[in-house]
Amino acid sequence: MNAAIDHSREALSDAMAGVLGRLRQRAPRVHCLTNAVAQAFTANVLLALGAIPSMTLAAEEVPAFAASADALLLNLGTLDDTRRTAFALGLEVAERDGKPWVLDPVFVDRSPPRLALAGDLLLRSPTLLKVNAGELAALGGADRLGAGSYAVTGAVDVVSCGGRQLRLANGDPMMGRVTATGCAAGAVLGACLAVEPDPMLAAASGLSFVAIAGELAAREARGPGSFVPAFLDALYGLDARTLAAQLRLA
Amino acid sequence: MNAAIDHSREALSDAMAGVLGRLRQRAPRVHCLTNAVAQAFTANVLLALGAIPSMTLAAEEVPAFAASADALLLNLGTLDDTRRTAFALGLEVAERDGKPWVLDPVFVDRSPPRLALAGDLLLRSPTLLKVNAGELAALGGADRLGAGSYAVTGAVDVVSCGGRQLRLANGDPMMGRVTATGCAAGAVLGACLAVEPDPMLAAASGLSFVAIAGELAAREARGPGSFVPAFLDALYGLDARTLAAQLRLA
Amino acid sequence: MNAAIDHSREALSDAMAGVLGRLRQRAPRVHCLTNAVAQAFTANVLLALGAIPSMTLAAEEVPAFAASADALLLNLGTLDDTRRTAFALGLEVAERDGKPWVLDPVFVDRSPPRLALAGDLLLRSPTLLKVNAGELAALGGADRLGAGSYAVTGAVDVVSCGGRQLRLANGDPMMGRVTATGCAAGAVLGACLAVEPDPMLAAASGLSFVAIAGELAAREARGPGSFVPAFLDALYGLDARTLAAQLRLA
Repeated sequence: MNAAIDHSREALSDAMAGVLGRLRQRAPRVHCLTNAVAQAFTANVLLALGAIPSMTLAAEEVPAFAASADALLLNLGTLDDTRRTAFALGLEVAERDGKPWVLDPVFVDRSPPRLALAGDLLLRSPTLLKVNAGELAALGGADRLGAGSYAVTGAVDVVSCGGRQLRLANGDPMMGRVTATGCAAGAVLGACLAVEPDPMLAAASGLSFVAIAGELAAREARGPGSFVPAFLDALYGLDARTLAAQLRLA
Repeated sequence: MNAAIDHSREALSDAMAGVLGRLRQRAPRVHCLTNAVAQAFTANVLLALGAIPSMTLAAEEVPAFAASADALLLNLGTLDDTRRTAFALGLEVAERDGKPWVLDPVFVDRSPPRLALAGDLLLRSPTLLKVNAGELAALGGADRLGAGSYAVTGAVDVVSCGGRQLRLANGDPMMGRVTATGCAAGAVLGACLAVEPDPMLAAASGLSFVAIAGELAAREARGPGSFVPAFLDALYGLDARTLAAQLRLA
Repeated sequence: MNAAIDHSREALSDAMAGVLGRLRQRAPRVHCLTNAVAQAFTANVLLALGAIPSMTLAAEEVPAFAASADALLLNLGTLDDTRRTAFALGLEVAERDGKPWVLDPVFVDRSPPRLALAGDLLLRSPTLLKVNAGELAALGGADRLGAGSYAVTGAVDVVSCGGRQLRLANGDPMMGRVTATGCAAGAVLGACLAVEPDPMLAAASGLSFVAIAGELAAREARGPGSFVPAFLDALYGLDARTLAAQLRLA
């Protein structure tokens, strides 16, 4: 066992427990501009954790909902005109009011229109970018992201902020057998940014909440069907003690 | 124990069992013009209880689906142009054919466009209005609703019809940790109105079916994840005996 | 016991196990142009079985997603303009590239616009048509379908291809108490067609995977709520031995 890692593991798990406590206490509202497949599950993930979801994409509703939200999610899945307009309206409010926003360019590596839009949105400096390795490559790699804050998810999740880096090793392959776990994680990152100003800690916390809940759920699930209720229950029951016991750095 | 309440409790539970029996026997179809987040869960709630959902919002389909439905739900969540058009078309059919319809102006207190539309729709005299306290306040309070039929949901659900009032005390806070339980309850109210002409009894029945199922599910759930299957199972298994044992007036 | 049926039952179950093995190994991607209610559940059914879903309906995204998919699903539920355009774009790619596609004209018997569109789409010769008895009647009956490949679902599922016929007897009524099980089955048929060129075997396999998983899930479910996770777990755990033990011909 590496004593340095173990020390930073304890400090990090304590800090994450602080984020979780504030999230539960403040119940931040995350306005989710997200894809059609992920909407209901994302709402349930936020509610299970203790945050409040809102989801409308209607142009005349987005400004008011975004203005009263504590964070915004822009997920590029099922990228239709309604969503494009909603992104523009929501982002205008986020920039005006200095609200944190998360960009999740899902499958940007498979859809040229998403890639073009993601490039434009990156220029607006998202508080946090969430990608997997394939999406990162399509966006031009880590070099292009420079000093921004981003999280690269995978078997090991890597969070990078202004040159610092953190590697997190929780999670379970079963999460990939359920639709929208990654999309819902993007919304959780928004909830964490709403209660934690350091994007590094917020990102590491949100990804770990999801990955640890996923790991606990996979242990008792018999397949992806029973995984879903177990995962939501685990998010609901997550506490400082569980974080301390389960968090793994890589 | 108040003997008068206990007597009316028994009579009410018997009457509700009658509504449930007719619902199961006739399997009414409820056409749900509802928000994107609630669609799948609402369909599953209606099916679990014994009613038949239909959900299309497409302008060219709504008139035929509404005409062959037994009740209509207008839920103002995710209020886009498609839904506005669908409401107008569905309501035209409901008024022409004298079909019961439920208005659920969700989050009308947070969205000016919903508030304006809800005001217009109230003038069309919904068979039943379903609101929570915040939504009722935004709409101008009980005075504005006058002699109409409406249900105000909360820790205690209050049903008001032409001056009469009924207070129901079932339910569990866990229902608030799962998205769309309230929206699905609106559809259940539609199913009850399809088989029970008295809006007071229909509303009290629908709210109690949902609240009692929620209470039973919360007892065995470990969190909001396991609550969902338990809730649908409880709706499916609901019967006269359970209603008699569980119904609580306030 | 009929020895001829039992012999063909064993041969068929072996052949189905081959389809399942190839599906798991190749993880085909099915682009699902499907209704709003079914999207999330359909994605989870495909993932549980071992296939990969994609779901976007946006006009500018459908051609690229369809071109890189291994099969296409056209489900006519919630038939709005977005979906009509997506069908046209997706079908153009499928015909150009010779990709298998499944047509599921859900509730075509209740919606005149769906009936008109289904008639047009039938002229394009879907690799497989999936209907129930009511939908088949609305489309003009089996005579009109002639030598095409189609599956008629019901208490007994009947697969017809170029005059041959196969009758499958698995399934459970509980499947009708959960929304979108039929719609998700259409996507599973697409996944099977992606790995099996004989439409007869592909159709029989897909319907049996779903029906056997449904039967196993219904045995342990207490209602439609607990049925859903059990059904997805059963799809995930399906194997040659289970197929051999459970497959029933009629």
